[in-house]
Amino acid sequence: MILVTGGVKSGKSSFALKLSEEYNKKAFLATGVPFDEEMKKRIEKHKAERGNDFDTYEEPINVPDTLNSIADKYDVIVFECVTTYLGNLYYYAVNIDNYLDKLLESFKNVKCELIIVTNEVGWGVIPENELARKYVETLGKLNSKIANISDQVYLVVSGIGVRIK
Amino acid sequence: MILVTGGVKSGKSSFALKLSEEYNKKAFLATGVPFDEEMKKRIEKHKAERGNDFDTYEEPINVPDTLNSIADKYDVIVFECVTTYLGNLYYYAVNIDNYLDKLLESFKNVKCELIIVTNEVGWGVIPENELARKYVETLGKLNSKIANISDQVYLVVSGIGVRIK
Amino acid sequence: MILVTGGVKSGKSSFALKLSEEYNKKAFLATGVPFDEEMKKRIEKHKAERGNDFDTYEEPINVPDTLNSIADKYDVIVFECVTTYLGNLYYYAVNIDNYLDKLLESFKNVKCELIIVTNEVGWGVIPENELARKYVETLGKLNSKIANISDQVYLVVSGIGVRIK
Repeated sequence: MILVTGGVKSGKSSFALKLSEEYNKKAFLATGVPFDEEMKKRIEKHKAERGNDFDTYEEPINVPDTLNSIADKYDVIVFECVTTYLGNLYYYAVNIDNYLDKLLESFKNVKCELIIVTNEVGWGVIPENELARKYVETLGKLNSKIANISDQVYLVVSGIGVRIK
Repeated sequence: MILVTGGVKSGKSSFALKLSEEYNKKAFLATGVPFDEEMKKRIEKHKAERGNDFDTYEEPINVPDTLNSIADKYDVIVFECVTTYLGNLYYYAVNIDNYLDKLLESFKNVKCELIIVTNEVGWGVIPENELARKYVETLGKLNSKIANISDQVYLVVSGIGVRIK
Repeated sequence: MILVTGGVKSGKSSFALKLSEEYNKKAFLATGVPFDEEMKKRIEKHKAERGNDFDTYEEPINVPDTLNSIADKYDVIVFECVTTYLGNLYYYAVNIDNYLDKLLESFKNVKCELIIVTNEVGWGVIPENELARKYVETLGKLNSKIANISDQVYLVVSGIGVRIK
Protein backbone atom coordinates (compact mmCIF):
# COMPACT_ATOMS: atom_id res chain seq x y z
CA MET A 1 0.00 0.00 0.00
CA ILE A 2 1.42 3.32 -1.14
CA LEU A 3 0.31 6.85 -0.19
CA VAL A 4 1.06 9.73 -2.56
CA THR A 5 0.54 13.23 -1.12
CA GLY A 6 1.38 16.80 -2.12
CA GLY A 7 -0.06 20.19 -3.01
CA VAL A 8 -2.41 21.22 -5.81
CA LYS A 9 -1.02 20.41 -9.30
CA SER A 10 2.21 19.12 -7.81
CA GLY A 11 2.17 16.12 -10.13
CA LYS A 12 0.75 13.62 -7.60
CA SER A 13 -1.53 11.96 -10.16
CA SER A 14 1.16 11.50 -12.78
CA PHE A 15 3.51 10.17 -10.13
CA ALA A 16 0.89 7.68 -8.88
CA LEU A 17 0.20 6.53 -12.43
CA LYS A 18 3.95 6.10 -13.02
CA LEU A 19 4.21 3.96 -9.87
CA SER A 20 1.43 1.73 -11.23
CA GLU A 21 3.15 1.14 -14.59
CA GLU A 22 4.98 -1.99 -13.49
CA TYR A 23 1.72 -3.79 -12.73
CA ASN A 24 -0.24 -5.78 -15.24
CA LYS A 25 -3.96 -5.54 -14.56
CA LYS A 26 -4.77 -1.97 -13.50
CA ALA A 27 -7.88 -0.27 -12.15
CA PHE A 28 -8.48 3.40 -11.48
CA LEU A 29 -11.03 4.25 -8.80
CA ALA A 30 -12.16 7.85 -9.16
CA THR A 31 -14.21 9.69 -6.53
CA GLY A 32 -14.85 12.92 -8.43
CA VAL A 33 -18.46 13.90 -8.91
CA PRO A 34 -18.84 16.30 -11.85
CA PHE A 35 -20.73 19.01 -9.91
CA ASP A 36 -19.96 21.68 -12.49
CA GLU A 37 -18.43 22.28 -15.91
CA GLU A 38 -14.90 22.90 -14.50
CA MET A 39 -14.99 19.56 -12.66
CA LYS A 40 -16.43 17.76 -15.67
CA LYS A 41 -13.60 18.97 -17.93
CA ARG A 42 -11.01 18.01 -15.33
CA ILE A 43 -12.36 14.47 -15.06
CA GLU A 44 -12.44 14.03 -18.86
CA LYS A 45 -8.89 15.33 -19.14
CA HIS A 46 -7.65 12.92 -16.46
CA LYS A 47 -9.38 10.02 -18.22
CA ALA A 48 -7.70 10.87 -21.51
CA GLU A 49 -4.30 11.06 -19.80
CA ARG A 50 -4.66 7.54 -18.42
CA GLY A 51 -5.39 6.07 -21.83
CA ASN A 52 -6.64 2.51 -22.17
CA ASP A 53 -4.33 0.89 -19.63
CA PHE A 54 -6.85 1.22 -16.83
CA ASP A 55 -10.35 0.04 -16.14
CA THR A 56 -12.01 3.10 -14.62
CA TYR A 57 -14.53 2.95 -11.78
CA GLU A 58 -16.36 5.98 -10.39
CA GLU A 59 -17.73 5.94 -6.90
CA PRO A 60 -18.25 9.08 -4.82
CA ILE A 61 -19.38 7.49 -1.53
CA ASN A 62 -19.31 3.70 -1.21
CA VAL A 63 -15.61 3.32 -1.85
CA PRO A 64 -15.13 0.41 0.62
CA ASP A 65 -17.74 -1.72 -1.16
CA THR A 66 -16.30 -0.90 -4.57
CA LEU A 67 -12.77 -1.77 -3.43
CA ASN A 68 -14.02 -5.06 -2.00
CA SER A 69 -15.85 -6.01 -5.16
CA ILE A 70 -13.05 -5.23 -7.64
CA ALA A 71 -9.79 -6.01 -5.78
CA ASP A 72 -9.66 -9.67 -6.86
CA LYS A 73 -9.58 -8.73 -10.52
CA TYR A 74 -6.54 -6.42 -10.49
CA ASP A 75 -2.84 -6.26 -9.63
CA VAL A 76 -3.05 -2.60 -8.70
CA ILE A 77 -5.78 -0.08 -7.94
CA VAL A 78 -5.06 3.65 -8.05
CA PHE A 79 -7.49 5.48 -5.76
CA GLU A 80 -7.88 9.17 -6.57
CA CYS A 81 -8.40 10.84 -4.27
CA VAL A 82 -8.93 11.01 -0.51
CA THR A 83 -9.40 14.79 -0.68
CA THR A 84 -12.36 14.61 -3.05
CA TYR A 85 -13.81 11.63 -1.19
CA LEU A 86 -13.82 13.58 2.07
CA GLY A 87 -15.38 16.51 0.23
CA ASN A 88 -18.12 14.20 -1.02
CA LEU A 89 -18.81 12.99 2.52
CA TYR A 90 -19.09 16.58 3.75
CA TYR A 91 -21.35 17.45 0.81
CA TYR A 92 -23.72 14.55 1.37
CA ALA A 93 -23.60 15.09 5.14
CA VAL A 94 -23.38 11.43 6.08
CA ASN A 95 -21.78 10.16 9.31
CA ILE A 96 -18.24 11.05 8.38
CA ASP A 97 -16.28 9.33 11.18
CA ASN A 98 -18.12 6.12 10.47
CA TYR A 99 -17.33 6.28 6.76
CA LEU A 100 -13.67 7.07 7.40
CA ASP A 101 -13.31 4.08 9.76
CA LYS A 102 -14.75 1.83 7.08
CA LEU A 103 -12.49 3.39 4.45
CA LEU A 104 -9.36 2.69 6.52
CA GLU A 105 -10.58 -0.85 7.18
CA SER A 106 -11.11 -1.49 3.46
CA PHE A 107 -7.66 -0.05 2.62
CA LYS A 108 -6.12 -2.55 5.06
CA ASN A 109 -8.04 -5.50 3.60
CA VAL A 110 -7.42 -4.93 -0.11
CA LYS A 111 -5.29 -7.82 -1.39
CA CYS A 112 -3.82 -6.21 -4.51
CA GLU A 113 -1.43 -3.24 -4.51
CA LEU A 114 -3.27 -0.03 -3.60
CA ILE A 115 -1.93 3.39 -4.56
CA ILE A 116 -3.79 6.17 -2.75
CA VAL A 117 -3.61 9.82 -3.80
CA THR A 118 -4.31 12.56 -1.26
CA ASN A 119 -3.54 16.29 -0.78
CA GLU A 120 -1.69 18.47 1.65
CA VAL A 121 -4.13 21.27 2.52
CA GLY A 122 -2.99 22.51 5.95
CA TRP A 123 0.19 24.42 5.11
CA GLY A 124 -1.47 27.80 4.58
CA VAL A 125 -3.17 30.23 6.93
CA ILE A 126 -5.95 28.70 8.99
CA PRO A 127 -9.19 29.33 7.07
CA GLU A 128 -11.74 31.67 8.67
CA ASN A 129 -14.60 29.48 7.47
CA GLU A 130 -15.39 26.92 10.19
CA LEU A 131 -16.32 24.13 7.77
CA ALA A 132 -13.10 24.63 5.81
CA ARG A 133 -11.17 24.53 9.11
CA LYS A 134 -12.89 21.30 10.12
CA TYR A 135 -12.21 19.83 6.68
CA VAL A 136 -8.49 20.70 6.86
CA GLU A 137 -8.19 19.12 10.30
CA THR A 138 -10.11 15.98 9.38
CA LEU A 139 -8.05 15.47 6.22
CA GLY A 140 -4.81 16.07 8.14
CA LYS A 141 -5.68 13.42 10.72
CA LEU A 142 -6.93 11.04 8.03
CA ASN A 143 -3.71 11.40 6.01
CA SER A 144 -1.68 10.51 9.12
CA LYS A 145 -3.80 7.40 9.69
CA ILE A 146 -3.43 6.27 6.07
CA ALA A 147 0.33 6.98 6.11
CA ASN A 148 0.58 4.92 9.29
CA ILE A 149 -0.78 1.78 7.58
CA SER A 150 1.04 2.41 4.27
CA ASP A 151 4.26 0.63 3.32
CA GLN A 152 5.51 3.58 1.34
CA VAL A 153 4.69 7.30 1.51
CA TYR A 154 5.75 9.85 -1.11
CA LEU A 155 5.55 13.64 -0.86
CA VAL A 156 5.37 15.07 -4.37
CA VAL A 157 6.97 18.51 -4.82
CA SER A 158 7.15 20.13 -8.25
CA GLY A 159 6.64 16.75 -9.90
CA ILE A 160 9.35 15.04 -7.85
CA GLY A 161 8.26 12.17 -5.61
CA VAL A 162 10.23 12.40 -2.37
CA ARG A 163 10.00 9.14 -0.44
CA ILE A 164 9.41 9.91 3.24
CA LYS A 165 8.48 6.38 4.42
CA MET B 1 17.33 21.97 20.85
CA ILE B 2 14.87 20.44 18.40
CA LEU B 3 12.39 22.20 16.10
CA VAL B 4 9.31 20.32 14.90
CA THR B 5 7.37 21.97 12.07
CA GLY B 6 4.58 20.99 9.66
CA GLY B 7 1.05 21.76 8.54
CA VAL B 8 -2.21 21.74 10.48
CA LYS B 9 -2.99 18.33 12.04
CA SER B 10 0.10 16.82 10.48
CA GLY B 11 0.96 15.04 13.72
CA LYS B 12 3.58 17.57 14.93
CA SER B 13 2.41 17.39 18.55
CA SER B 14 2.42 13.61 18.74
CA PHE B 15 5.81 13.51 17.09
CA ALA B 16 7.22 16.07 19.55
CA LEU B 17 5.81 14.12 22.49
CA LYS B 18 7.34 10.92 21.11
CA LEU B 19 10.73 12.62 20.85
CA SER B 20 10.45 13.58 24.53
CA GLU B 21 9.73 10.02 25.69
CA GLU B 22 13.35 9.12 26.32
CA TYR B 23 13.74 11.89 28.90
CA ASN B 24 12.98 11.50 32.56
CA LYS B 25 11.63 14.74 34.01
CA LYS B 26 9.32 16.35 31.49
CA ALA B 27 7.54 19.70 31.28
CA PHE B 28 5.01 20.93 28.73
CA LEU B 29 4.82 24.67 28.17
CA ALA B 30 1.55 25.59 26.48
CA THR B 31 0.83 29.01 25.01
CA GLY B 32 -2.80 28.51 24.05
CA VAL B 33 -5.27 30.95 25.52
CA PRO B 34 -8.80 29.49 25.51
CA PHE B 35 -10.45 32.41 23.67
CA ASP B 36 -13.48 30.35 22.74
CA GLU B 37 -15.18 26.99 23.22
CA GLU B 38 -13.38 25.37 20.24
CA MET B 39 -9.99 26.39 21.64
CA LYS B 40 -10.96 25.27 25.15
CA LYS B 41 -11.91 21.79 23.96
CA ARG B 42 -8.72 21.50 21.95
CA ILE B 43 -6.58 22.39 24.98
CA GLU B 44 -8.39 19.88 27.21
CA LYS B 45 -7.99 17.18 24.57
CA HIS B 46 -4.27 17.83 24.24
CA LYS B 47 -3.88 17.70 28.02
CA ALA B 48 -5.62 14.33 28.19
CA GLU B 49 -3.40 12.96 25.42
CA ARG B 50 -0.24 13.85 27.33
CA GLY B 51 -1.38 11.98 30.42
CA ASN B 52 0.50 12.36 33.70
CA ASP B 53 4.04 12.21 32.35
CA PHE B 54 4.31 15.96 32.05
CA ASP B 55 4.07 18.92 34.37
CA THR B 56 2.03 21.43 32.39
CA TYR B 57 2.66 25.18 32.41
CA GLU B 58 0.50 27.71 30.60
CA GLU B 59 1.90 31.06 29.61
CA PRO B 60 0.56 33.10 26.70
CA ILE B 61 3.08 35.99 26.74
CA ASN B 62 6.03 35.82 29.15
CA VAL B 63 7.47 32.61 27.76
CA PRO B 64 11.14 33.65 28.25
CA ASP B 65 10.61 34.21 31.99
CA THR B 66 8.73 30.94 32.37
CA LEU B 67 11.45 29.02 30.53
CA ASN B 68 14.10 30.62 32.74
CA SER B 69 12.29 29.77 35.91
CA ILE B 70 11.51 26.12 35.16
CA ALA B 71 14.43 24.87 33.01
CA ASP B 72 16.53 23.74 36.01
CA LYS B 73 13.88 21.31 37.15
CA TYR B 74 13.46 19.28 33.94
CA ASP B 75 15.35 17.13 31.45
CA VAL B 76 13.12 18.22 28.60
CA ILE B 77 10.60 20.97 27.93
CA VAL B 78 8.13 20.69 25.04
CA PHE B 79 7.08 24.17 23.95
CA GLU B 80 3.81 24.25 22.02
CA CYS B 81 3.66 26.31 20.01
CA VAL B 82 5.41 29.21 18.30
CA THR B 83 2.39 29.79 16.03
CA THR B 84 -0.01 30.38 18.91
CA TYR B 85 2.58 32.43 20.79
CA LEU B 86 2.97 34.78 17.83
CA GLY B 87 -0.83 34.96 17.55
CA ASN B 88 -0.98 35.97 21.23
CA LEU B 89 1.59 38.73 20.65
CA TYR B 90 -0.45 40.08 17.72
CA TYR B 91 -3.64 39.88 19.78
CA TYR B 92 -2.20 41.75 22.76
CA ALA B 93 -0.45 44.23 20.44
CA VAL B 94 2.81 44.35 22.34
CA ASN B 95 6.18 45.22 20.76
CA ILE B 96 6.46 42.04 18.73
CA ASP B 97 10.07 42.29 17.48
CA ASN B 98 11.26 42.91 21.01
CA TYR B 99 9.40 39.87 22.34
CA LEU B 100 10.69 37.65 19.54
CA ASP B 101 14.31 38.69 20.20
CA LYS B 102 13.83 37.79 23.86
CA LEU B 103 12.20 34.49 22.91
CA LEU B 104 15.14 33.48 20.70
CA GLU B 105 17.57 34.52 23.43
CA SER B 106 15.75 32.39 26.02
CA PHE B 107 15.67 29.40 23.62
CA LYS B 108 19.46 29.66 23.31
CA ASN B 109 19.98 29.86 27.06
CA VAL B 110 17.78 26.98 28.20
CA LYS B 111 20.03 24.30 29.69
CA CYS B 112 17.75 21.27 29.36
CA GLU B 113 16.59 19.77 26.07
CA LEU B 114 14.01 21.99 24.40
CA ILE B 115 11.55 20.66 21.82
CA ILE B 116 9.78 23.49 20.00
CA VAL B 117 6.64 22.97 17.93
CA THR B 118 5.77 25.41 15.15
CA ASN B 119 3.66 25.50 11.96
CA GLU B 120 4.20 25.93 8.26
CA VAL B 121 1.66 28.56 7.19
CA GLY B 122 3.12 30.11 4.03
CA TRP B 123 2.59 27.35 1.47
CA GLY B 124 -0.84 28.51 0.28
CA VAL B 125 -1.99 31.56 -1.66
CA ILE B 126 -0.90 34.87 -0.16
CA PRO B 127 -3.77 36.05 2.08
CA GLU B 128 -5.61 39.21 1.02
CA ASN B 129 -5.88 40.33 4.64
CA GLU B 130 -2.85 42.52 5.46
CA LEU B 131 -2.55 41.35 9.07
CA ALA B 132 -2.66 37.70 7.98
CA ARG B 133 0.03 38.45 5.39
CA LYS B 134 2.21 40.13 8.02
CA TYR B 135 1.66 37.20 10.39
CA VAL B 136 2.66 34.64 7.72
CA GLU B 137 5.84 36.57 6.91
CA THR B 138 6.80 37.10 10.54
CA LEU B 139 6.27 33.44 11.39
CA GLY B 140 8.24 32.36 8.31
CA LYS B 141 11.22 34.49 9.29
CA LEU B 142 10.94 33.41 12.94
CA ASN B 143 10.89 29.72 11.98
CA SER B 144 14.09 30.20 9.97
CA LYS B 145 15.77 31.88 12.94
CA ILE B 146 14.75 29.10 15.32
CA ALA B 147 15.81 26.40 12.83
CA ASN B 148 19.16 28.15 12.53
CA ILE B 149 19.92 27.76 16.25
CA SER B 150 18.38 24.25 16.52
CA ASP B 151 20.48 21.09 16.51
CA GLN B 152 17.75 19.08 14.82
CA VAL B 153 14.81 20.13 12.62
CA TYR B 154 11.97 17.82 11.62
CA LEU B 155 9.29 18.46 9.00
CA VAL B 156 6.23 16.39 9.87
CA VAL B 157 4.16 15.20 6.88
CA SER B 158 1.16 12.93 7.40
CA GLY B 159 2.47 11.91 10.81
CA ILE B 160 5.97 11.13 9.53
CA GLY B 161 8.84 13.17 10.96
CA VAL B 162 11.28 13.88 8.13
CA ARG B 163 14.60 15.04 9.52
CA ILE B 164 15.85 18.00 7.47
CA LYS B 165 18.68 19.17 9.78
CA MET C 1 20.17 24.96 -13.79
CA ILE C 2 18.89 24.99 -10.23
CA LEU C 3 15.32 25.45 -8.98
CA VAL C 4 14.75 26.76 -5.45
CA THR C 5 11.18 26.46 -4.15
CA GLY C 6 9.41 26.84 -0.80
CA GLY C 7 6.75 28.77 1.10
CA VAL C 8 6.50 32.49 1.88
CA LYS C 9 9.52 33.80 3.84
CA SER C 10 11.03 30.33 4.03
CA GLY C 11 14.45 31.70 3.19
CA LYS C 12 14.38 30.79 -0.54
CA SER C 13 16.03 34.05 -1.61
CA SER C 14 18.86 33.87 0.88
CA PHE C 15 19.43 30.23 -0.02
CA ALA C 16 19.53 31.06 -3.75
CA LEU C 17 21.97 33.90 -3.13
CA LYS C 18 24.16 31.57 -1.06
CA LEU C 19 24.19 29.03 -3.90
CA SER C 20 25.42 31.78 -6.24
CA GLU C 21 28.33 32.79 -3.99
CA GLU C 22 30.83 30.46 -5.62
CA TYR C 23 30.42 32.13 -9.00
CA ASN C 24 32.42 35.11 -10.16
CA LYS C 25 30.31 37.35 -12.40
CA LYS C 26 26.78 37.51 -11.00
CA ALA C 27 23.50 38.96 -12.26
CA PHE C 28 20.17 39.24 -10.50
CA LEU C 29 17.08 39.33 -12.68
CA ALA C 30 14.13 40.70 -10.74
CA THR C 31 10.54 40.54 -11.97
CA GLY C 32 8.86 42.54 -9.23
CA VAL C 33 6.91 45.57 -10.34
CA PRO C 34 6.50 48.08 -7.49
CA PHE C 35 2.69 48.32 -7.71
CA ASP C 36 2.40 49.77 -4.21
CA GLU C 37 4.38 51.06 -1.25
CA GLU C 38 4.64 47.60 0.39
CA MET C 39 6.10 46.11 -2.79
CA LYS C 40 8.44 49.08 -3.27
CA LYS C 41 9.91 48.69 0.22
CA ARG C 42 10.32 44.95 -0.26
CA ILE C 43 12.25 45.45 -3.51
CA GLU C 44 14.54 48.08 -1.95
CA LYS C 45 15.19 45.80 1.01
CA HIS C 46 16.09 42.88 -1.22
CA LYS C 47 18.44 45.08 -3.24
CA ALA C 48 20.25 46.21 -0.10
CA GLU C 49 20.62 42.59 1.06
CA ARG C 50 22.34 41.60 -2.17
CA GLY C 51 24.93 44.35 -1.83
CA ASN C 52 27.24 45.18 -4.73
CA ASP C 53 28.07 41.63 -5.79
CA PHE C 54 25.30 41.55 -8.37
CA ASP C 55 24.35 43.52 -11.43
CA THR C 56 20.59 43.93 -11.08
CA TYR C 57 18.16 43.79 -14.01
CA GLU C 58 14.43 44.41 -13.69
CA GLU C 59 12.05 43.00 -16.22
CA PRO C 60 8.41 42.22 -15.47
CA ILE C 61 7.39 40.63 -18.81
CA ASN C 62 10.07 40.03 -21.45
CA VAL C 63 12.21 37.78 -19.32
CA PRO C 64 13.26 35.48 -22.21
CA ASP C 65 14.71 38.41 -24.21
CA THR C 66 16.49 39.78 -21.16
CA LEU C 67 17.99 36.37 -20.35
CA ASN C 68 19.16 36.02 -23.95
CA SER C 69 20.77 39.44 -24.00
CA ILE C 70 22.67 39.19 -20.69
CA ALA C 71 23.61 35.48 -20.34
CA ASP C 72 26.95 35.83 -22.15
CA LYS C 73 28.24 38.35 -19.65
CA TYR C 74 27.76 36.34 -16.46
CA ASP C 75 28.72 33.09 -14.73
CA VAL C 76 25.43 32.92 -12.86
CA ILE C 77 22.03 34.57 -13.09
CA VAL C 78 19.60 34.44 -10.15
CA PHE C 79 16.03 34.79 -11.43
CA GLU C 80 13.56 35.94 -8.80
CA CYS C 81 10.90 34.88 -9.10
CA VAL C 82 8.59 32.69 -11.18
CA THR C 83 5.67 33.47 -8.84
CA THR C 84 5.82 37.21 -9.42
CA TYR C 85 6.45 36.74 -13.13
CA LEU C 86 3.29 34.66 -13.47
CA GLY C 87 1.43 37.30 -11.46
CA ASN C 88 2.67 39.95 -13.91
CA LEU C 89 1.42 37.89 -16.85
CA TYR C 90 -2.02 37.57 -15.24
CA TYR C 91 -2.04 41.28 -14.45
CA TYR C 92 -1.15 42.37 -17.97
CA ALA C 93 -3.50 39.73 -19.43
CA VAL C 94 -1.17 38.60 -22.21
CA ASN C 95 -1.29 35.14 -23.79
CA ILE C 96 0.00 33.29 -20.76
CA ASP C 97 0.62 29.81 -22.22
CA ASN C 98 2.61 31.35 -25.03
CA TYR C 99 4.78 33.34 -22.62
CA LEU C 100 5.37 30.33 -20.39
CA ASP C 101 6.48 28.20 -23.34
CA LYS C 102 8.97 30.90 -24.31
CA LEU C 103 10.14 31.20 -20.70
CA LEU C 104 10.86 27.46 -20.47
CA GLU C 105 12.63 27.57 -23.83
CA SER C 106 14.84 30.46 -22.69
CA PHE C 107 15.65 28.67 -19.40
CA LYS C 108 16.87 25.68 -21.44
CA ASN C 109 19.03 27.82 -23.72
CA VAL C 110 20.83 29.96 -21.14
CA LYS C 111 24.51 29.07 -21.25
CA CYS C 112 25.58 30.29 -17.79
CA GLU C 113 24.36 28.80 -14.49
CA LEU C 114 20.75 29.78 -13.83
CA ILE C 115 19.26 29.76 -10.32
CA ILE C 116 15.48 30.10 -10.42
CA VAL C 117 13.40 30.99 -7.37
CA THR C 118 9.73 29.99 -7.19
CA ASN C 119 7.03 29.44 -4.55
CA GLU C 120 4.91 26.61 -3.29
CA VAL C 121 1.35 28.01 -3.20
CA GLY C 122 -0.91 24.95 -3.47
CA TRP C 123 -0.56 23.39 0.00
CA GLY C 124 -3.48 25.25 1.59
CA VAL C 125 -7.21 25.06 1.09
CA ILE C 126 -8.32 25.53 -2.51
CA PRO C 127 -9.14 29.24 -2.94
CA GLU C 128 -12.78 30.18 -3.60
CA ASN C 129 -11.69 32.88 -6.04
CA GLU C 130 -11.56 31.38 -9.54
CA LEU C 131 -8.60 33.45 -10.71
CA ALA C 132 -6.60 32.51 -7.61
CA ARG C 133 -7.45 28.86 -8.24
CA LYS C 134 -6.32 29.11 -11.85
CA TYR C 135 -3.12 30.87 -10.73
CA VAL C 136 -2.33 28.14 -8.19
CA GLU C 137 -2.85 25.42 -10.79
CA THR C 138 -0.82 27.16 -13.47
CA LEU C 139 2.07 27.80 -11.09
CA GLY C 140 1.95 24.20 -9.85
CA LYS C 141 2.20 22.83 -13.38
CA LEU C 142 4.88 25.37 -14.32
CA ASN C 143 7.00 24.46 -11.29
CA SER C 144 6.87 20.79 -12.31
CA LYS C 145 8.00 21.66 -15.83
CA ILE C 146 10.90 23.78 -14.56
CA ALA C 147 11.91 21.10 -12.02
CA ASN C 148 11.87 18.57 -14.85
CA ILE C 149 14.53 20.45 -16.84
CA SER C 150 16.57 21.47 -13.76
CA ASP C 151 19.72 19.64 -12.69
CA GLN C 152 19.10 20.35 -9.03
CA VAL C 153 15.91 21.16 -7.10
CA TYR C 154 15.83 22.39 -3.51
CA LEU C 155 12.81 22.68 -1.22
CA VAL C 156 13.53 25.35 1.38
CA VAL C 157 11.87 24.79 4.78
CA SER C 158 12.55 27.16 7.67
CA GLY C 159 15.72 28.37 5.96
CA ILE C 160 17.03 24.86 5.30
CA GLY C 161 17.53 23.86 1.67
CA VAL C 162 16.45 20.23 1.30
CA ARG C 163 17.76 18.79 -1.95
CA ILE C 164 15.00 16.76 -3.62
CA LYS C 165 16.63 16.33 -7.05
